[in-house]
Amino acid sequence: MTVETTSAPLPPLDFRSDTLTRPDEHMRSVMARAEVGDNVIDTDPTIRELEERAADVLGMPAALWTPSGTMANLVALSTHLRRGDRFLAPRGAHVLLNELGSAAWLAGGMPDPLDHDAGPGRPTPATVRAAAGGAGPYYTLRTTLLSLENTHNAAGGAVTPPDEHEALVAAAHDAGLRVHLDGARLWNASVALGVAPATLTAGVDSVSACFSKGLGAPVGSVVAGSVEFVEQARRMRQMLGGGVRQGGVLAAACLVALDRVDELALDHAKASALATGLRERGWDVAEPQTNIVLAGVADVAATLDALRSLGILALPMAGKVRFVLHRDVSADDVTTALDRIDKGMNA
Amino acid sequence: MTVETTSAPLPPLDFRSDTLTRPDEHMRSVMARAEVGDNVIDTDPTIRELEERAADVLGMPAALWTPSGTMANLVALSTHLRRGDRFLAPRGAHVLLNELGSAAWLAGGMPDPLDHDAGPGRPTPATVRAAAGGAGPYYTLRTTLLSLENTHNAAGGAVTPPDEHEALVAAAHDAGLRVHLDGARLWNASVALGVAPATLTAGVDSVSACFSKGLGAPVGSVVAGSVEFVEQARRMRQMLGGGVRQGGVLAAACLVALDRVDELALDHAKASALATGLRERGWDVAEPQTNIVLAGVADVAATLDALRSLGILALPMAGKVRFVLHRDVSADDVTTALDRIDKGMNA
Amino acid sequence: MTVETTSAPLPPLDFRSDTLTRPDEHMRSVMARAEVGDNVIDTDPTIRELEERAADVLGMPAALWTPSGTMANLVALSTHLRRGDRFLAPRGAHVLLNELGSAAWLAGGMPDPLDHDAGPGRPTPATVRAAAGGAGPYYTLRTTLLSLENTHNAAGGAVTPPDEHEALVAAAHDAGLRVHLDGARLWNASVALGVAPATLTAGVDSVSACFSKGLGAPVGSVVAGSVEFVEQARRMRQMLGGGVRQGGVLAAACLVALDRVDELALDHAKASALATGLRERGWDVAEPQTNIVLAGVADVAATLDALRSLGILALPMAGKVRFVLHRDVSADDVTTALDRIDKGMNA
Amino acid sequence: MTVETTSAPLPPLDFRSDTLTRPDEHMRSVMARAEVGDNVIDTDPTIRELEERAADVLGMPAALWTPSGTMANLVALSTHLRRGDRFLAPRGAHVLLNELGSAAWLAGGMPDPLDHDAGPGRPTPATVRAAAGGAGPYYTLRTTLLSLENTHNAAGGAVTPPDEHEALVAAAHDAGLRVHLDGARLWNASVALGVAPATLTAGVDSVSACFSKGLGAPVGSVVAGSVEFVEQARRMRQMLGGGVRQGGVLAAACLVALDRVDELALDHAKASALATGLRERGWDVAEPQTNIVLAGVADVAATLDALRSLGILALPMAGKVRFVLHRDVSADDVTTALDRIDKGMNA
Repeated sequence: MTVETTSAPLPPLDFRSDTLTRPDEHMRSVMARAEVGDNVIDTDPTIRELEERAADVLGMPAALWTPSGTMANLVALSTHLRRGDRFLAPRGAHVLLNELGSAAWLAGGMPDPLDHDAGPGRPTPATVRAAAGGAGPYYTLRTTLLSLENTHNAAGGAVTPPDEHEALVAAAHDAGLRVHLDGARLWNASVALGVAPATLTAGVDSVSACFSKGLGAPVGSVVAGSVEFVEQARRMRQMLGGGVRQGGVLAAACLVALDRVDELALDHAKASALATGLRERGWDVAEPQTNIVLAGVADVAATLDALRSLGILALPMAGKVRFVLHRDVSADDVTTALDRIDKGMNA
Repeated sequence: MTVETTSAPLPPLDFRSDTLTRPDEHMRSVMARAEVGDNVIDTDPTIRELEERAADVLGMPAALWTPSGTMANLVALSTHLRRGDRFLAPRGAHVLLNELGSAAWLAGGMPDPLDHDAGPGRPTPATVRAAAGGAGPYYTLRTTLLSLENTHNAAGGAVTPPDEHEALVAAAHDAGLRVHLDGARLWNASVALGVAPATLTAGVDSVSACFSKGLGAPVGSVVAGSVEFVEQARRMRQMLGGGVRQGGVLAAACLVALDRVDELALDHAKASALATGLRERGWDVAEPQTNIVLAGVADVAATLDALRSLGILALPMAGKVRFVLHRDVSADDVTTALDRIDKGMNA
Repeated sequence: MTVETTSAPLPPLDFRSDTLTRPDEHMRSVMARAEVGDNVIDTDPTIRELEERAADVLGMPAALWTPSGTMANLVALSTHLRRGDRFLAPRGAHVLLNELGSAAWLAGGMPDPLDHDAGPGRPTPATVRAAAGGAGPYYTLRTTLLSLENTHNAAGGAVTPPDEHEALVAAAHDAGLRVHLDGARLWNASVALGVAPATLTAGVDSVSACFSKGLGAPVGSVVAGSVEFVEQARRMRQMLGGGVRQGGVLAAACLVALDRVDELALDHAKASALATGLRERGWDVAEPQTNIVLAGVADVAATLDALRSLGILALPMAGKVRFVLHRDVSADDVTTALDRIDKGMNA
Repeated sequence: MTVETTSAPLPPLDFRSDTLTRPDEHMRSVMARAEVGDNVIDTDPTIRELEERAADVLGMPAALWTPSGTMANLVALSTHLRRGDRFLAPRGAHVLLNELGSAAWLAGGMPDPLDHDAGPGRPTPATVRAAAGGAGPYYTLRTTLLSLENTHNAAGGAVTPPDEHEALVAAAHDAGLRVHLDGARLWNASVALGVAPATLTAGVDSVSACFSKGLGAPVGSVVAGSVEFVEQARRMRQMLGGGVRQGGVLAAACLVALDRVDELALDHAKASALATGLRERGWDVAEPQTNIVLAGVADVAATLDALRSLGILALPMAGKVRFVLHRDVSADDVTTALDRIDKGMNA
């Protein structure tokens, strides 16, 4: 790979993550007018509105706002798991690799990663059944939870379709496991599959969803489940320091974000365009299912450096280069990025 | 105690907490214009500005934003303590009673409450020395931290003056303990004592401070300490799910709050007026040192009910009735409350 | 205090602890013949026999052997407490001071020490009631357990009589708390009070008892409670690495120890003789209730050094010098010790 | 599979585990004469002798006795890992599957299982390197430990030879990882490979070894490492309740066991005979490397039931039927078992 140095730094095109999206003027103005209250002593009315609407959209009885997706998953796992309980998750899941081990030390779970034998990001129900069993002779590790992820980030924003989702949930429930769904990008799966988000949560015992990724809200996620689950999760949120006071200023942005789910289709189109362009230039890129493009390269660090020198920012992910498309990079930016690669890199 | 029922509910005067304070128009407009970034991948510029300014005001090398004061204390204790380390704190401290036990199960500390033998909220250095020692013969509990609180909430917003603070820190350091200061209301202590906040953090290894109490910011605290401490605390914050993306919208409000510290003097004056009024009506009330008024009553629950029926909201605290004065209740509200008590209660 | 140095080291008289007691020939011969099995895969028959007999003696439905009293308390607390639950224990309790903080970081409890306002080692029921309540307005610390200790080690082997015990249990249960009893030296309390051990466990939800203190077994304790409690405790014991295989060799010694409970009266007599002798020599010593003598001295470390130079070993405890009487020091040894003090120390 | 019912129950041949081995008369007599002391307050001389000798045999600076192999691994992992640290272990490792998740919730580790791509129980150095790296862009999971297992139980008592061991340790150290070796059956590996145990611990930061499996001691393991490591591990052992008093009665048996390591060759010969016999009868059985025979069968539970009806006890392991050969089953017992299978089962 040869990199031609440029005289002046190019304005960066930032494909590192959809978490980079900033609130726009409309979102900011709604935040500035948000009705608020003390959500620890009382209830913040805008947080309550968001929680009710999110529960409804996700098809769950109740929901709880959290300041991050990591906390949403953490309170869910902490609520489901007793000390030492084993839980299953598809290999490379965010709860396994990207939450600093808190699923283990804090939530108390002993994880076991599942192979993606049904497709990217997707284990088969048979794999779940096999892993859930395996009771040993005495003092057996207790397996109590399956934690799914849709879309699956490290598998390149891969979606799990409704029928596979339902079969996985059924396999888990048959084996006596609860099911948590990390739906940080459930909105993308919903748009890509053309089904309602609630279709993709069928049967789960809890689901987290994030407003601060492609939807552009500055801060905020939810975790949803039964009324009893949410009551326990609320206490855990407070324990972790996630109980905030006038959080309505943030929840207002999340409500705006909820109105924008359909716009994620634009990100998917941009991802497809980038993937096509890269493939045309000889890159090893599969067709993206949502807004994430993974490129297999010989040397990830060197490629990221080369891209950076061209004003193209990406991140390493699962041994590949990850580009994430989002509302703050345009279709034109994709074209510009491909042009820069043409000029600067011989892949 | 006799309560005369009223025909229509009175508009409530809310003395439950200064956490109830809402952002005003100016604060909201600054939030709406805040420059933001992804504070997990990069750095949010407004969070960075707040952290730098807070470190400066607190007289510490570095600071870290957190979504709550509970999380600020929790990341500090988690960073200081190893599993099973004993820590000392004045009886009734927030970390002991109001953080759901996370100092123990999550930060790993074995707490030991200290008597307030120097005055409300304040142990003596001798008490610290005696508690820090006591090494037993073998496999001794390791005592490694003194956690102070200024102002001390459950002691009625009691302040620790600089000379006592310094003597406590010296006693702790001499005994090999680190010192954390829960400064959720350090601003009030600073105003009441007429000294800079940094004077009240002299020698500490870490300090938390909150912008979401009397200063009116909707969400946000900081924890400050050495550069190395903050680096470790940052990782712990991420573990707990306190790493947010475009948190600059919140930090902007905290910056506005920092400009308002002097205005807390008004809350102290209102507290004094309320205390005087209650005493004149025969209540058992000490002169408040800051913005918190504690009233000793025969039956806390009954008194709170009686007050509520008069449109006066307060909370139980340490076996007493706690009134907190703040920017969203006026001096006139204090007069109105006293009038309602005159009409409705015979104390 | 003046210490007269001696030319040759005197043979030590070891009053440091009754844990120093060694198995005698009879106990060793029973151990050597013990029937054993794999207590993880199957059941070791001698452990089972001990567990059944201990449950019976303690008046509980079931019991579980553990390798130490610390583990017995730890599995009990871990079984009773959820993360962050507050528990009450008399100040200076072994679970607070002598188990390296595991009640907090491992069992997950937030401790609150109770004053000994009914007498040495004994809080009043009113103190329990007051501490158990105190529910705050929101997100209140959950208080769920009272952990008693009879005899209370740091209070000088102090006993709690049956009527006080029952009143404490009733107060706790009325407040919704479970009750654990650290009965490491329950046998001493039973002998001193002249009541059966089961009388002193009335109403408790769990009790630990130790065979490796004054009873002379080399290794072993039990924790007893309901069948369901013991089932959960068994799993926790295995988690902590306390599941041993052919532990019957140890349980056999514990069974011998159980036959010797009455002999503890001899230790109590020796303790009384030592206390009397020390008082006659001007020491500040209260009459011991069981086998522990606490002496208040001006300088604990210097006194321990002086005693050591006279061949008298003791330990510091709760700011005093602690002498423990046990089966491996004789009544003559007490006389010898007093003689050495006469010759070597001017107290 | 057809099982012919027998009229009277056959005396059981117990192949469930080598942990079933009972102390013989010689071992019991040595235990009965063991010199003992209080190993919490002082040092038990026999425990000290065992620790010194075990450290020497294992080629490590220091060693610590523990009541179980589970506790030996647990104190090692707890000492090596900080909260949330990721650790690597070959799939099916005892610390992953057979210690009730304590490596996660208690030691604080986030495990990642490694494929056995070098052979049964053995990952390649390349797999270690790949898993150890993979640092993500920000807030990366910290990988700090490789936990090996030799012999690997779930892989059928599979050995890792010295050259592979050294290459794995080198790969781990190059990647900045510490190395723990679960050597519960390291003695078997040593005998099978014809090398000293210390050869198989080359370079490790800690190693556990067990005396209560094939060597016949009733209770006891050790964990060995640097002097500093053992000091920390000692404190953790006390925290977990593994600090016992006169443990010399057990350590004496462990010392006898250490003299018997060579006798494990007999177990290996019996294992080979059983495997050969089963293969001759059409069973799917690989040649055992040590004392464990794994048989692949269509229905594990049904096969175990059938065997049990013939008076042959085995256990399920890793989806197969596991037979463990040990000193309490003879070569004749193997012949008898094969005869019973001939008469009772058509495999």
